[in-house]
Amino acid sequence: MSGHQPTPPGTPNVTGILTDWIVDTNGPDIPNEIRHEGLRTFVNWVGCAVGGASHETVDAALNGLLAFSGRSTSTVLGRAERMDALHAALLNGISSHVLDYDDTHLKTIIHPAGPVASAILALAETRPVSGYDFLTALILGVEAECRIGNCVYPAHYDRGWHITGTAGVFGAAAAAGKILGLTKQQMRWAFGIAGTQSSGFREQFGTMTKSFHPGRAAQNGLASALLAQAGFDSSERVLEAPRGFACVMSDKQDWDEIIEGLGTRWEAGLNSYKPFACGIVIHPTIDGCIQLRSELGDRVNDIESVHLVAHPLVLELTGKQTPQTGLEAKFSVFHSAACALLRGDGSPTAFTDTVVKEPDVVALRDTITAVADPACHSASVTIEVRFKDGPPVIKHVERALGSREVPLTDDQVTEKFRAQSALVIGEEATQKLLDVSWSTPELDDVADVARTSSENAWVSGAAA
Amino acid sequence: MSGHQPTPPGTPNVTGILTDWIVDTNGPDIPNEIRHEGLRTFVNWVGCAVGGASHETVDAALNGLLAFSGRSTSTVLGRAERMDALHAALLNGISSHVLDYDDTHLKTIIHPAGPVASAILALAETRPVSGYDFLTALILGVEAECRIGNCVYPAHYDRGWHITGTAGVFGAAAAAGKILGLTKQQMRWAFGIAGTQSSGFREQFGTMTKSFHPGRAAQNGLASALLAQAGFDSSERVLEAPRGFACVMSDKQDWDEIIEGLGTRWEAGLNSYKPFACGIVIHPTIDGCIQLRSELGDRVNDIESVHLVAHPLVLELTGKQTPQTGLEAKFSVFHSAACALLRGDGSPTAFTDTVVKEPDVVALRDTITAVADPACHSASVTIEVRFKDGPPVIKHVERALGSREVPLTDDQVTEKFRAQSALVIGEEATQKLLDVSWSTPELDDVADVARTSSENAWVSGAAA
Repeated sequence: MSGHQPTPPGTPNVTGILTDWIVDTNGPDIPNEIRHEGLRTFVNWVGCAVGGASHETVDAALNGLLAFSGRSTSTVLGRAERMDALHAALLNGISSHVLDYDDTHLKTIIHPAGPVASAILALAETRPVSGYDFLTALILGVEAECRIGNCVYPAHYDRGWHITGTAGVFGAAAAAGKILGLTKQQMRWAFGIAGTQSSGFREQFGTMTKSFHPGRAAQNGLASALLAQAGFDSSERVLEAPRGFACVMSDKQDWDEIIEGLGTRWEAGLNSYKPFACGIVIHPTIDGCIQLRSELGDRVNDIESVHLVAHPLVLELTGKQTPQTGLEAKFSVFHSAACALLRGDGSPTAFTDTVVKEPDVVALRDTITAVADPACHSASVTIEVRFKDGPPVIKHVERALGSREVPLTDDQVTEKFRAQSALVIGEEATQKLLDVSWSTPELDDVADVARTSSENAWVSGAAA
Repeated sequence: MSGHQPTPPGTPNVTGILTDWIVDTNGPDIPNEIRHEGLRTFVNWVGCAVGGASHETVDAALNGLLAFSGRSTSTVLGRAERMDALHAALLNGISSHVLDYDDTHLKTIIHPAGPVASAILALAETRPVSGYDFLTALILGVEAECRIGNCVYPAHYDRGWHITGTAGVFGAAAAAGKILGLTKQQMRWAFGIAGTQSSGFREQFGTMTKSFHPGRAAQNGLASALLAQAGFDSSERVLEAPRGFACVMSDKQDWDEIIEGLGTRWEAGLNSYKPFACGIVIHPTIDGCIQLRSELGDRVNDIESVHLVAHPLVLELTGKQTPQTGLEAKFSVFHSAACALLRGDGSPTAFTDTVVKEPDVVALRDTITAVADPACHSASVTIEVRFKDGPPVIKHVERALGSREVPLTDDQVTEKFRAQSALVIGEEATQKLLDVSWSTPELDDVADVARTSSENAWVSGAAA
């Protein structure tokens, strides 16, 4: 009746159960290993946001919106510009995702930190928030968005939704609401306002608008929590209502994924960190090609052709044969394999507008073929390299670097951070930022991380 | 291939055709009668925005967001607060829709002005825009959103999307892009950025978040045009791509509705203006009950029961039997009928938290029954009134006041404006605002309308 419709008999009170749990859960309720994964999630995100801060996508967003910013309380990480918290959330969400180098909840392909950390670090610059409380909110936000993603994945993603945006807005609202100390009713409203903004099409992959999705999710989730705190009301069952999120935007609704095992089963503990600056599905190929390069030595120059047998999503998502820009190259398993074989590179420098047109890369790329094998695990690949003379070499990657089975160590997270951040703010500032980021659990004011990121800020001619 | 997928063979270049037409169409290309309908659309919207300006929903939005506003270039209509153009677009979109008293494109149930006018009046306060050019942009924006609505209605609406938000964001982008003078490529990008934010669930009907939808659509469409102008790129085929708007968010895609007859068939000429402050589907009932009241005189106090035979959407959308708040009452055909019979009222004063609980209204409301008749036109109703003594009286409304067949005259638009605006800014200021609003085609600077609305502004204790 009216816009509302009753839920089918037996539908649990999904929104209420999840939001009550978020309000009731405190830092000590979270196991230490999950808190440490939350810290890794945050540190990796800081590195990615600084690493992306010099990208033209960030320049364009600033050029379009800086004139509309409010009181400049909050840092655009790695840059000199400061904005109001809502706009800073948008910009940091963009920069942390623009290199496709961030984190991944592998069950759903959600990149969890972008929407969540972007929202609450910008918010934390408007009021004192300890590093401990910040990480509690971050973990709860990641938990919410990944559980909501599990509820609807894969049907929701298959329909064409960019799940990092659509689920991320809930994570941002949850985390911001936790920082703001929302009541249970306000938290339900915050979810309602956030959910009704859930959006973002996969059609945008390969354009600047892809990274706009986690940014806008951060901004909209934060705004939802602020509005709810101010008494702006909303549906209190946005997740489960027949005309709410899961039913409107997905053919699959598995409510247990959201409400079962809260506090004991932690999706936030399953986050992973990309070792390579592109879509996660290409990572086994890059890992294998870099291994091949070190094993083959100079013979990489004698390669006649390369053949890949990969998970079907590899061709579905990254089947671009002839990418013309760095952004497009991130969606080309062919470019990625060529660059890894010839340069041993899967970092941001492998996905520039220049390298995508370099003759040796183009020549090897055009010899590469790929087939989809439904039996192939998404973290696996088999690579067959054929030479002008001699027998072929076959490399099978069972689980790629960065997968749950082969996670990056803390040191590898640090090295990844260092490599991308140093290109933007230099090595000295990067070391200082690394130190303060890893010390987050002990910080009295987590905003120190944001401020430190801009001490030797990137200044773009375009946006300055 | 990547997030992109090829469109099925034969799919026209929908986004390109529509956006090229928007860029190429100038004021003199629009027939005079369409321009006059655009003026009526604007005048009606100004009255609604001022009429809603004192609502607690607007107070709550301001309380939540005012601290984040940028340079206060733009008016929150009817109020003392000023905000940056993006936030003003949001607030005016909320206030113009919060009373459910705005305009309706009857084919799609889109309320066209909210997203479009809110975006471009706020923008016009940042740069000089003539009333003539403003109306051109308004009409093109309305045309775009209604055509896009036609393409996906009713499947899209039936799935649970609040089409005023989902289609409105395109209208806002189109109109803002026209004011900004976007190139054709920029206009395609603006549509891409706008479309990827298309959102809003019907679940929110009856809450403050319903009116948030046109507000956010206005704000997001304006932001999309600003970003596109700054070089923020996006998909150039957001409407027709397999993972774009129409395919992801609807089971129906009728491309001809978007691209056929551009410049000759005008959806913007089909706008209508609500005579009553509630969902359009109740209007035949209120119209009939007000007619009955004047015909029955004192006998309305002897009514034993009332029976309605109505279009199925009446019960689907407004079947709430026992509304508890003024907002809920807008979704109750039972409350609306009782109030129209007992008070002759369908204006905002019929939908307050007080009147919904008045004993005589509740008592009559509880005698009212309704059945859906699929053969009943959505602008029709049959009302049977039974008395304690004597034969029943039957009233059939063939086409309700405010329908395309019985449109409000310009004078009725003026009277509607006057009645709601005077409650907020007083009669004198209302007359002045009416005069300047109707003179829009001759204004050198359309921002005069916005400024005039706040000369005797409503100041809320809560938000001041």
